[in-house]
Amino acid sequence: MDVLPYINEHKKRFLDELFEVLRIPSVSADPKFRDNVIEAAEFMKKKLQEAGADHVTLIETEGFPVVYGDKIIDPALPTVLVYGHYDVQPADPYELWETPPFEPVIRNEKIYARGSCDDKGQVYMHVKAFETMMKTNSLPCNIKFMIEGEEEVGSSHLNDFLRQNKERLKADVVLVSDTSMIANDCPSITIGLRGLSYNEVEVTGANRDLHSGVYGGAVGNPINVLARMIASLKDENFRITIPGFYDDVIEYTAEERAEMAKRPFSLDDYKAELGISDIEGEAGYTTIERATIRPCLDCNGIWGGYTGAGAKTVLPSKAFAKISMRLVPNQSSEKITELFKKHFLSIAPPSVSVKVTPHHGGEPVVTPTDSIAFAAANKAMEQTFGKKAIPTFEGGSIPVIASFENILGLKSILLGFGLDTDALHSPNEHYGLFNFYKGIETIPYFYKYFAELSGSRAPVSQ
Amino acid sequence: MDVLPYINEHKKRFLDELFEVLRIPSVSADPKFRDNVIEAAEFMKKKLQEAGADHVTLIETEGFPVVYGDKIIDPALPTVLVYGHYDVQPADPYELWETPPFEPVIRNEKIYARGSCDDKGQVYMHVKAFETMMKTNSLPCNIKFMIEGEEEVGSSHLNDFLRQNKERLKADVVLVSDTSMIANDCPSITIGLRGLSYNEVEVTGANRDLHSGVYGGAVGNPINVLARMIASLKDENFRITIPGFYDDVIEYTAEERAEMAKRPFSLDDYKAELGISDIEGEAGYTTIERATIRPCLDCNGIWGGYTGAGAKTVLPSKAFAKISMRLVPNQSSEKITELFKKHFLSIAPPSVSVKVTPHHGGEPVVTPTDSIAFAAANKAMEQTFGKKAIPTFEGGSIPVIASFENILGLKSILLGFGLDTDALHSPNEHYGLFNFYKGIETIPYFYKYFAELSGSRAPVSQ
Repeated sequence: MDVLPYINEHKKRFLDELFEVLRIPSVSADPKFRDNVIEAAEFMKKKLQEAGADHVTLIETEGFPVVYGDKIIDPALPTVLVYGHYDVQPADPYELWETPPFEPVIRNEKIYARGSCDDKGQVYMHVKAFETMMKTNSLPCNIKFMIEGEEEVGSSHLNDFLRQNKERLKADVVLVSDTSMIANDCPSITIGLRGLSYNEVEVTGANRDLHSGVYGGAVGNPINVLARMIASLKDENFRITIPGFYDDVIEYTAEERAEMAKRPFSLDDYKAELGISDIEGEAGYTTIERATIRPCLDCNGIWGGYTGAGAKTVLPSKAFAKISMRLVPNQSSEKITELFKKHFLSIAPPSVSVKVTPHHGGEPVVTPTDSIAFAAANKAMEQTFGKKAIPTFEGGSIPVIASFENILGLKSILLGFGLDTDALHSPNEHYGLFNFYKGIETIPYFYKYFAELSGSRAPVSQ
Repeated sequence: MDVLPYINEHKKRFLDELFEVLRIPSVSADPKFRDNVIEAAEFMKKKLQEAGADHVTLIETEGFPVVYGDKIIDPALPTVLVYGHYDVQPADPYELWETPPFEPVIRNEKIYARGSCDDKGQVYMHVKAFETMMKTNSLPCNIKFMIEGEEEVGSSHLNDFLRQNKERLKADVVLVSDTSMIANDCPSITIGLRGLSYNEVEVTGANRDLHSGVYGGAVGNPINVLARMIASLKDENFRITIPGFYDDVIEYTAEERAEMAKRPFSLDDYKAELGISDIEGEAGYTTIERATIRPCLDCNGIWGGYTGAGAKTVLPSKAFAKISMRLVPNQSSEKITELFKKHFLSIAPPSVSVKVTPHHGGEPVVTPTDSIAFAAANKAMEQTFGKKAIPTFEGGSIPVIASFENILGLKSILLGFGLDTDALHSPNEHYGLFNFYKGIETIPYFYKYFAELSGSRAPVSQ
């Protein structure tokens, strides 16, 4: 197998095509971008067709459609289901972008645009790797694509989709590039992901905004009360105080933690890159552990009262916050959401009323490291990076991974090529040209080794 | 003196004129209403002229102009300086108004509009009381008007104005209607006001918004940190924890507090009117005390992170809050602002950086109750309400009152006709028709008694 000549010959066009889809503001969270989300789906459909996929179609859901396409070269061969998403996070705050989020540019060998890494850049590597294998007659196994449009809003219709399309999605493994590596010279494969419980809280005091002179000091102020409630959710060791929160958390042995600590990491570089003087987090754990194998609680947004210029002496009637928790095996999103809701309501003082509205959640994931697919991913990485990949836990969430297992009975391989510093979900998101092309080069080797290693085993029948 | 026939004859026109100025959105805080603020000043100028004032002019300041006008009937008589303001608070949130804030209407015998009470409605009573005395030849002393346009943004240019116009503003007392009474059947005169220290704080974590999965649990989240810092500003007894904060607070004796407690007050009515299940405030003090003779700390606004619809899994780079403190005698606004700033910076953890920006402040006030002017106000109230007024402390701030004393050497009389429930600074601000007309009726008696009681004393020379 030698895919590099084809990739090198077409690398300019591959990038032009990626730019084309990056220009589409497919923000699934915001109804005003509805048409753009559909446009991005149509783009993916067209490109899968051009690359040589069969049965390419947009499968409707109650939300945005799933782009499906496949190439079954021989029902006797194993089948890989490629998953990715064509939707992106909101780009605000726009004013913090150095160049507009939906006008991709190259700076310092990196592609700057919303979605450049998460996940358009990464999913498009798969489309182009598929094209490369098709055009060079080197596709060694069957392939199915499912590219969804609601990952950034919790994949809320995907479980129904999986249930309704079990037959069509039959495969041996799911391959996903929506995670990161340690560094460009330090390849890694993600073996664990955190889950998520995302909630919105509303604290109401008086039935109207009040004059802060007339009422200040005598009535509960929803902002102060909300601040107090949020502050009380962690103790002085930054342990979360919700009763039962840690009950199901897997504690790793000293040996396992020592193994994880071998991953290269410089706290000084970490702080310098983020521009912070110091870190903060749960006592007794390292920074990497805090961000991967430990659960956490963060406010993602807060608002209430007067937020305009100057001074308005008001006690607001309401204050709001978005509060999310990242979960680890074996916490359950549903259970934690219930515990959070119950606890948050219980700590509300009688001076206010409190409402808790759960948004989306997702289950934490651990992928097996003793599978053929994992071995194939390892070999592919070693082939193109020239060194062995390190297995890593990652802090983000891809809720659908748990669904693949629960609904389709499929394990996933999390073969990501991004970097933690790519500013995912942030202004100035970017993706290295190195990473984009290295992904297109590495993916075909995964298929090659997966087919080879699967040789003696019976694949699913197509 | 019998002013009622004239007032009754013209009451419809008085109200029409008030409606006219209420229709002008003279929001001093918002630059987009600049022309409207000037328009309101011009309106007051025209109406003072029509009422018979001399030397009516707009005196320029570095901000909005002060409307000045006077009537010196005899330099040997005492002189009253009437103070009020023609600017109003911002009307947002607009969506909570039952009828638009700048389209005054009468509902249930009340005028609904931004500024209907604070302070256009109250200042206009003085203009119409003046007209009434002029037209009925009953003005018993000299009168000077100064109506400013920056009260709602901290009267920041008024001290310069007072210094530059000391001669022009010479008087024996300042008369102000910008406060409230206990109830329509329970007249009161305000003898104390709280001061103000208003600050904006900015908490910065990482140099960019971060993906909450990748970084959550490992770095300081500015929202969580801000919540923690705000929560720590009060202890479990709702005492403010800023070192030195209470050092200069006047503690009242048991006898004085017993006297204050005679003021009619129903906690059940108070809670019902606000729609709250319970109050909260400093341990050891009553609700009225908490709202008047005790200082307090409140967040007037808070914002940071994602505040749109749905879920965005972001750790924001920054979070902000507006934090103000109401001050009581003998606290100093400047000193408390310094203490706040120093303390707030000192409690910032090393995971964030914090900036504190003071907005405007104002000094607390106590007015004398043994003066001729206070006696005159008492007699005027008794005359028109048929019962004695109760002296009360009020929770709001009128920073200029301290300046009258410090710069002009003048004490003030706080003869307000509003009610605490008039929704000042809130949506659906209103002012009773009873209160508007009762004010116009009462004010001339203040002049009458003030002139009579001053008879034997030498007034300032004009």
